[in-house]
Amino acid sequence: MRLIPLLTLSFLLFYSAVTTQASPCSINGFPLVRNISELPQDSYGRGGLSHITVAGSLLHGLKEVEVWLQTFSPGSFTPIHRHSCEEVFVVMKGSGTLYLAESSHAKYPGKPQEYLIFANSTFHIPVNEVHQVWNTNEHEDLQVLVIISRPPVKVFTYEDWLMPHTAAKLKFPYFWDEQCVQTPQKDEL
Amino acid sequence: MRLIPLLTLSFLLFYSAVTTQASPCSINGFPLVRNISELPQDSYGRGGLSHITVAGSLLHGLKEVEVWLQTFSPGSFTPIHRHSCEEVFVVMKGSGTLYLAESSHAKYPGKPQEYLIFANSTFHIPVNEVHQVWNTNEHEDLQVLVIISRPPVKVFTYEDWLMPHTAAKLKFPYFWDEQCVQTPQKDEL
Repeated sequence: MRLIPLLTLSFLLFYSAVTTQASPCSINGFPLVRNISELPQDSYGRGGLSHITVAGSLLHGLKEVEVWLQTFSPGSFTPIHRHSCEEVFVVMKGSGTLYLAESSHAKYPGKPQEYLIFANSTFHIPVNEVHQVWNTNEHEDLQVLVIISRPPVKVFTYEDWLMPHTAAKLKFPYFWDEQCVQTPQKDEL
Repeated sequence: MRLIPLLTLSFLLFYSAVTTQASPCSINGFPLVRNISELPQDSYGRGGLSHITVAGSLLHGLKEVEVWLQTFSPGSFTPIHRHSCEEVFVVMKGSGTLYLAESSHAKYPGKPQEYLIFANSTFHIPVNEVHQVWNTNEHEDLQVLVIISRPPVKVFTYEDWLMPHTAAKLKFPYFWDEQCVQTPQKDEL
């Protein structure tokens, strides 16, 4: 009978070692086929957002594409932003509004075009065009699968549509990449 | 009353002009937000396959990523193949088997590893690794969203897992890209 606590301890130690190996930023700690509903999800401090990195540059070693599953509760939205990569959306659930300013050649985005987005629709954002996705449906979550090229994403955010492109603020690493981007070691001298 | 046929004719002529503009290979003929269930789907001669290009290089002007929605009826499968791009799968419905030979350094793929894939799972194929996706579920369609980098895809197919890499056959443009790849004009002299 005294064997049981020992076995439990051994199991715990073994389990702990396995968990350590599969740390949130370890490329090798993930199984090849992953259950999306078991992947880490977080709001990363953004109200109404649930973000899951389905297949990622920093998490899974991808170099050319990255896939996210994002859910926006009613009334929540992305910042007004741009990035120098391609982005494709597939709307899984709900509906909302895409705001898109096709004016990267002007000094500021200007008044955006509005597009209704809906379940089973798809759209893409051309490189560097300023945009915002908003769950304008009061009754339902908006869930989108997002595909970007050139990961990890470098996002320039705008406070409003009249802010000059040159004043847009770079956020890098982006919220969900912060934990895993390797920052240079501080020189102790 | 004689005005109606004229109006009908005008409408038909106008509609015809619009349809011509939105030809299957016209980048500008598509609306920004597209209903996936209204996009063209075809088997492209492959038994049991339904392929939809959700966002494409040749169809929609993307340069860095491409997204497909593919449905495999029970028992149907992709060829054994490789491509020099990244590929991410998100399984939407059903289940099946991924065969993956992680041996691009050897002379031929060899016996592949088998992985169960299932609804709401995700996996990715590293560049140039030989693989095959098979709907091994007898009772249900397997539906996957496929994301590739570096479109349009250039596929090398194998007859079996022991075929040397150097004997794999290039298929380019791939079946769903054939209609829209611009072939060089023949010299009339």
